[in-house]
Amino acid sequence: MKRIGVLTSGGDAPGMNAAIRAVVRTCIQNEMSVIGFKRGYNGLLMRSENEHEDFEILTTRSVSDKIHRGGTFLMTARCLDFKEERFQMQAVRNLKMLGVEGLVCIGGDGTYKGAEALNRLGIPTIGIPGTIDNDLAYTDYTIGFDTALNTACECINKVRETSDSHERVSLITVMGRNCGDIALHTAFACGAELFMVPEIPWSIEDIAERVKWGVMRGKRSMIIVFAEGALQSLTSDIPALCKEHPDLKDISVHHISSSQVAMIIEHLSGQETRATVLGYIQRGGSPSAQDRILASRLGARAAELLRDDQGGLAVGIRGNKIIEVPLSEVQNGTHAADTELSQLINVMAVMTKS
Amino acid sequence: MKRIGVLTSGGDAPGMNAAIRAVVRTCIQNEMSVIGFKRGYNGLLMRSENEHEDFEILTTRSVSDKIHRGGTFLMTARCLDFKEERFQMQAVRNLKMLGVEGLVCIGGDGTYKGAEALNRLGIPTIGIPGTIDNDLAYTDYTIGFDTALNTACECINKVRETSDSHERVSLITVMGRNCGDIALHTAFACGAELFMVPEIPWSIEDIAERVKWGVMRGKRSMIIVFAEGALQSLTSDIPALCKEHPDLKDISVHHISSSQVAMIIEHLSGQETRATVLGYIQRGGSPSAQDRILASRLGARAAELLRDDQGGLAVGIRGNKIIEVPLSEVQNGTHAADTELSQLINVMAVMTKS
Amino acid sequence: MKRIGVLTSGGDAPGMNAAIRAVVRTCIQNEMSVIGFKRGYNGLLMRSENEHEDFEILTTRSVSDKIHRGGTFLMTARCLDFKEERFQMQAVRNLKMLGVEGLVCIGGDGTYKGAEALNRLGIPTIGIPGTIDNDLAYTDYTIGFDTALNTACECINKVRETSDSHERVSLITVMGRNCGDIALHTAFACGAELFMVPEIPWSIEDIAERVKWGVMRGKRSMIIVFAEGALQSLTSDIPALCKEHPDLKDISVHHISSSQVAMIIEHLSGQETRATVLGYIQRGGSPSAQDRILASRLGARAAELLRDDQGGLAVGIRGNKIIEVPLSEVQNGTHAADTELSQLINVMAVMTKS
Amino acid sequence: MKRIGVLTSGGDAPGMNAAIRAVVRTCIQNEMSVIGFKRGYNGLLMRSENEHEDFEILTTRSVSDKIHRGGTFLMTARCLDFKEERFQMQAVRNLKMLGVEGLVCIGGDGTYKGAEALNRLGIPTIGIPGTIDNDLAYTDYTIGFDTALNTACECINKVRETSDSHERVSLITVMGRNCGDIALHTAFACGAELFMVPEIPWSIEDIAERVKWGVMRGKRSMIIVFAEGALQSLTSDIPALCKEHPDLKDISVHHISSSQVAMIIEHLSGQETRATVLGYIQRGGSPSAQDRILASRLGARAAELLRDDQGGLAVGIRGNKIIEVPLSEVQNGTHAADTELSQLINVMAVMTKS
Repeated sequence: MKRIGVLTSGGDAPGMNAAIRAVVRTCIQNEMSVIGFKRGYNGLLMRSENEHEDFEILTTRSVSDKIHRGGTFLMTARCLDFKEERFQMQAVRNLKMLGVEGLVCIGGDGTYKGAEALNRLGIPTIGIPGTIDNDLAYTDYTIGFDTALNTACECINKVRETSDSHERVSLITVMGRNCGDIALHTAFACGAELFMVPEIPWSIEDIAERVKWGVMRGKRSMIIVFAEGALQSLTSDIPALCKEHPDLKDISVHHISSSQVAMIIEHLSGQETRATVLGYIQRGGSPSAQDRILASRLGARAAELLRDDQGGLAVGIRGNKIIEVPLSEVQNGTHAADTELSQLINVMAVMTKS
Repeated sequence: MKRIGVLTSGGDAPGMNAAIRAVVRTCIQNEMSVIGFKRGYNGLLMRSENEHEDFEILTTRSVSDKIHRGGTFLMTARCLDFKEERFQMQAVRNLKMLGVEGLVCIGGDGTYKGAEALNRLGIPTIGIPGTIDNDLAYTDYTIGFDTALNTACECINKVRETSDSHERVSLITVMGRNCGDIALHTAFACGAELFMVPEIPWSIEDIAERVKWGVMRGKRSMIIVFAEGALQSLTSDIPALCKEHPDLKDISVHHISSSQVAMIIEHLSGQETRATVLGYIQRGGSPSAQDRILASRLGARAAELLRDDQGGLAVGIRGNKIIEVPLSEVQNGTHAADTELSQLINVMAVMTKS
Repeated sequence: MKRIGVLTSGGDAPGMNAAIRAVVRTCIQNEMSVIGFKRGYNGLLMRSENEHEDFEILTTRSVSDKIHRGGTFLMTARCLDFKEERFQMQAVRNLKMLGVEGLVCIGGDGTYKGAEALNRLGIPTIGIPGTIDNDLAYTDYTIGFDTALNTACECINKVRETSDSHERVSLITVMGRNCGDIALHTAFACGAELFMVPEIPWSIEDIAERVKWGVMRGKRSMIIVFAEGALQSLTSDIPALCKEHPDLKDISVHHISSSQVAMIIEHLSGQETRATVLGYIQRGGSPSAQDRILASRLGARAAELLRDDQGGLAVGIRGNKIIEVPLSEVQNGTHAADTELSQLINVMAVMTKS
Repeated sequence: MKRIGVLTSGGDAPGMNAAIRAVVRTCIQNEMSVIGFKRGYNGLLMRSENEHEDFEILTTRSVSDKIHRGGTFLMTARCLDFKEERFQMQAVRNLKMLGVEGLVCIGGDGTYKGAEALNRLGIPTIGIPGTIDNDLAYTDYTIGFDTALNTACECINKVRETSDSHERVSLITVMGRNCGDIALHTAFACGAELFMVPEIPWSIEDIAERVKWGVMRGKRSMIIVFAEGALQSLTSDIPALCKEHPDLKDISVHHISSSQVAMIIEHLSGQETRATVLGYIQRGGSPSAQDRILASRLGARAAELLRDDQGGLAVGIRGNKIIEVPLSEVQNGTHAADTELSQLINVMAVMTKS
């Protein structure tokens, strides 16, 4: 191929810029030109009044001073229309018009669906896993995950200091709607006492029991790491709980949130419990060294695959080696290490009762 | 005096440990001994079964490796009982029993009230301003404020990267129930476009107008810094607004929160708006160089004042000079610089319409 | 005035970009246009082949996304030629040709000399103190100083951890050729045991004695903060010392460096002593909140002064108030707080023998 | 086993505390007790007057609040005596006297030699790779390497800002006497233009040529990452170079250092070149999330192996799986990924001439 495109789609992740840079510079080294499309798949639809709002030619200089920047300078957005084939075909026409022969799509699960569709319609595509959630089972790591862990650990460290000073329990919500990887790894790395993830059923009563037991063991403060999506695997009967404990009558049983979970834990355990939601902070920040390295290796490989006229693949890392798998075989999912980690957290936090 | 006490009370603030260290080491240099009381005024009431839970003798070694640590190793807590004179008198008896002749109380407005009471009852006390809120008008800065600003700026920087990538408005809630100093200084230092503080009336309609105007001016993303207490000065008629805009019918008009403010802004301005609450992260972290220096200077002065048998004073900094004022004259309040800053923010953000 | 220029000169300092931004946005608010000159006074001489290399018109957009960036996007350089009047006059001619009526010069002592010359030759100039060294006596703080302190403290914290693990003395060289402010404030903020600055005479023998005394007092590791320029005030007779201690015969008596000072301390005290030079790391980094605020306030004031046709002034901060003094009265120098700080360091480090 | 020992030896590395914590807590979970020996193998020789200086019993509480701390609370030191068998046998006697049946030794290559000797003499030992250098070929990563990369990247980022402002070349020396892994990964992650490592021959003339070529390509500033040990693979004839260029006559041909390399590059390329040595800063700092996780996994496995009466093994990670190999087969060395990385750096920096 002589000309390819690149875009970032879905939630932004630190390291996306490093991946774009690697795609661009590998292409230029191989005498290929690169067009950067803006706002994910929206850029392919070319609906802006000003063409420059949809795409631009990327040179060596365009990606200078970008490797260490968070976010994505190509911007990102959801594109609901792109689920429809007529818009996918519009994109194919636009790409052909611009002479773009292949496309690198950086993002998560949703991004890969779009990439697969384009590939099916005749534009060879390569997916690069750019998402902090680490929720793609075919690769050990996704770009942004390592940075998100470090950011979460730094934040939790700050919360722990104030927790210690006040002898409180802190329940800290981290990202992860369907995948508990951020929560699990963060909890392990921070020495958290407890964690809740969507993959493992849990009850508030049990958590409260364990908090009481931790206090008995002399713990002055405790950290509970809570994955956004952990409410999915909550087994407690909240209405029954609230009926049993009249003080909990203000709890909304329809819209239970992590701060209400904290309230119930406080009530059941007798320990002051405060909720903190890390939120968008986790997505930002200069990418870690490992994320920059991973992004650069994956970006280079993606460009080489298109150079060699291969498409329909997702690149990833397994056991420190760059791999590629068919986009059609990629599925959302979690990783095998989870059981080892979740057991180790219990051992390390000295929260298992023998 | 030959023996004094020290305690930290109220919300913890980075630099409290540096202040305790300075008190202890200045005392030892002056051949005075120091007792550290735990959990604020609770320690003075000596209600724990184990004496060591209430107080301990602090040596040079006790405060080693502490200057750079966030939180307070003496712990802190509220003590509602201490508002009653009988408990204050109990504390005086306990202090006398231990041979403690004076007391350094590190904290905010509530802490100063307790210190004033003890002083009236015959224990000379010195107040050190330890609170991130900077809400003590007699001193230019309180211990922890500078660190909190730096922490908030780092967090907002991360949010801005993801905001830019998604072309969103981000509404970021920072601490400050009655005092907008953190919000104002953070907004200024981060180059935020807009801010809301308890001292200045504001309406959601006006904010939404300004967001629209910013978009017209070409701003791809905007940062709005929101002080926790800013709802106090909200002038909008929320029920009327919600009636006017049927899409807003889910807004609770009783319990409006910053995330609901974000929702209304999004609705009125047509710009995607996301809320982030920084929360307890702002209290933690290794104190900044300036906070360590301020805390050390204030701690040293407090110890010297008690050495010279002076009490009933609060120490502070004005125009880079350490000062002391009578505790009875200290009042909660904001600072004169506010008008200058709030005007400058508008100029810098290019958000004023001429 | 309707059009002014701005430049940064001398060593770069974090916050310079924030100052340029404030100048530009204040001007635009006041309907003045701004030209940014590149590489300090070199830009005024317009010697590049490409005009764009010498200057550019700065708009609101030019200074977007700059407030939090270290360094200076206008670049900086020394310009030896500018000490000669014929080149100063060339600059005046060029400024007039471009319709530039006034100039903001951001930098240190050398920068101010150039600004004063231009002012004398008929171009009103305002100096903004941008230097990490804090070596301008008329202002309490210079832009970049606060950030440099925080950076130095973070670095020293890392060195202290490895020092503690190895039970070593670490001698850490920080910036400051003629002014010990960085060293003094850093030493105080880090809880360093000892410091050497150009303003206070010291001998290696005395330092080694104090190290031995610290070890006797039970200190496992020690931090010594060393200002670059501290060799100026060294009173030891190095050749005599080396003759007395044959193991020191490899010490170059002509070119003594901080790492050789460490070697001599190790020899005289018997304690392993390692040297670290922080170097250029101290100049970089995102400016602290205080530096951004200070830079923005000073930049705004500078622009307002030129708007009001005032020149020949340096702006600064004294006791939290923005002030201006005639450029002709500004002199290099240190600050009054030094004695208080240097005594406090000794008290805090428990390194004074009574 | 019912009682084991643990020690850290050689240079400290961030994550050592996390490894000790994992050993201790896994043991306690398995009803084994743990003794921590201080200052590496010195602790086993029990030469201190005060027994507490040599070792202490470690409880769950001893390792609280340690997972995020840099350095090693057991301290570390070299122990030259331990190369002699009589001292090794003394250690075995001491261990038996204390009822210690096995030993976990955390460190690098030298530490492993001591562990192997003890194992041969009848004390089962497990080695944990704790060294920032990543110079153990049997494991993909050593504890501390990831943190050191992140620290180096942060520092280089700061230097790049000031380099950009001054349009300079910066030559930055990072750790790595025999192994270029830190330099290589750091250079890649920072987007450095050039690097020198002990494994790849290089000449100053070639580097200077490439600097000139980079300037021609429009690079305003460049970063060169230099491994401490890179002088080993320097192929230039320095005396000849200095003779050829009279301005270089002050260069010491015997003791050439990285700052002299910078000087020669400046002379040959005509570009201002400044040297920075990161030094001990790289060893410190709170361990990264990955280092904490790796350290915890390895520590837990080491304890389990001793529990199961296995010894003479080194634990490590390969392809994300914890592995163990006989201590006798572990050899110092570098990793296979190097060629891929070093080629990618050239592509990414656009520094290859086609």
